[in-house]
Amino acid sequence: MPFADRNLEDIRREVAAFADERDWAQFHSPRNLLLALMGEVGEAAEIVRWQGDAQPPVPPGKEEDWADELADVFTLLIRLADRSGVDLTTAFARKLQKARAKYPVAAFKGSNRKYDEVEGPEVRKSGSPEVV
Amino acid sequence: MPFADRNLEDIRREVAAFADERDWAQFHSPRNLLLALMGEVGEAAEIVRWQGDAQPPVPPGKEEDWADELADVFTLLIRLADRSGVDLTTAFARKLQKARAKYPVAAFKGSNRKYDEVEGPEVRKSGSPEVV
Amino acid sequence: MPFADRNLEDIRREVAAFADERDWAQFHSPRNLLLALMGEVGEAAEIVRWQGDAQPPVPPGKEEDWADELADVFTLLIRLADRSGVDLTTAFARKLQKARAKYPVAAFKGSNRKYDEVEGPEVRKSGSPEVV
Amino acid sequence: MPFADRNLEDIRREVAAFADERDWAQFHSPRNLLLALMGEVGEAAEIVRWQGDAQPPVPPGKEEDWADELADVFTLLIRLADRSGVDLTTAFARKLQKARAKYPVAAFKGSNRKYDEVEGPEVRKSGSPEVV
Repeated sequence: MPFADRNLEDIRREVAAFADERDWAQFHSPRNLLLALMGEVGEAAEIVRWQGDAQPPVPPGKEEDWADELADVFTLLIRLADRSGVDLTTAFARKLQKARAKYPVAAFKGSNRKYDEVEGPEVRKSGSPEVV
Repeated sequence: MPFADRNLEDIRREVAAFADERDWAQFHSPRNLLLALMGEVGEAAEIVRWQGDAQPPVPPGKEEDWADELADVFTLLIRLADRSGVDLTTAFARKLQKARAKYPVAAFKGSNRKYDEVEGPEVRKSGSPEVV
Repeated sequence: MPFADRNLEDIRREVAAFADERDWAQFHSPRNLLLALMGEVGEAAEIVRWQGDAQPPVPPGKEEDWADELADVFTLLIRLADRSGVDLTTAFARKLQKARAKYPVAAFKGSNRKYDEVEGPEVRKSGSPEVV
Repeated sequence: MPFADRNLEDIRREVAAFADERDWAQFHSPRNLLLALMGEVGEAAEIVRWQGDAQPPVPPGKEEDWADELADVFTLLIRLADRSGVDLTTAFARKLQKARAKYPVAAFKGSNRKYDEVEGPEVRKSGSPEVV
């Protein structure tokens, strides 16, 4: 699903303006925001928890709720990065570069090797598996 | 912390290309991705869990780990939206509009009213408090 | 899978003694413990995230890791209840009583009604769906 | 806060009976239960997210909600262990034994060493820090 074009920094500024207009920066410590983000991840989980791997993964009629929850997680993540000194654009680019080095296409492509068998040793070694 | 300029749709495409090059779409069901996202949120939580509200919230020397974890959550969220039919840019804009309607500045600004007292009834009524 | 017999209060005391011996009560605020619990839930999620609904749900060879993660979540939950003034035994009994009232067997048993269709309205109304 | 006496295996059986009476075992796959558990952890997080480290950690008037959320997490954890082949009593005892070996009192007690400095290397080495 393509996303509409939008600059990530514009989004950060819009979220910050929303909070500043309400004088909410005082509540937006990194730990508060992380707990709030967990709350929104939990709401997303509640939508799909009983679905098994059935199709569609999101229950019919809950599509807008699902999109709203992902938007909430996104908003809190933007705010959390902003308030904890992380340039999310740059952090993303650096992390994807690490992932490219860790998961070279030649070793990780193809249907004969199981994903988790390949990933398993990395998980064990680093405790921090790549995410894509 | 300002973010470097980057189009969110460009980021989505880069994440998708990374997965496609490795033939990983087969593993990227919405529920798998949500569980993976929970894993990354958990890693972020492990960094700040024993900090209390002390300053700085991220322990010295862990700043890059923290940025990496937020980048992981971000990458998985982008991928989760993409794979579950959500245009994240548009979902964000719609949700922020709802939040503006729910939290008018006149009622929610100012230090004399407690944030959670104001928000409390909304939480009870809707089960889905706004996030910023 | 039956559990070995053990009194829940004995477990609470053993967890408290472990922490007290190390003088760790100072770190065990409810919010710190909740973030730590989230970290352990995240580690459990990392074990099963790419499994789909395949059998077995826990990848072969990871059974002990899985049991360890559930034990970690359990330990932190016991400690979190203890440190935030909750008698978990009594809270459990009261909550199950509420669940019995909300989900009468006559209305919720049987294969012809879908679980989430029945549960859906409760979720909407209360924001707090029952858990079993 | 002491817990009322109750055998953990009795609790497991009561949770299983509740589910069986409603014919809900079909929905209680380990991944479904883990997502449901995440939902309940999220609800607990929503109660304390804006509290900072203020006292009391649970907002006044929300004590019963808080106890209910912890009870929900507990119930789902019991069910998750039961449905994924884990004897939680035994897993707990084994994991605490590992924690005793990893965190000897002599090295980890005392106020002069910071908790996270001591724990830091363990976290790095194992990816699986002990929880108490």
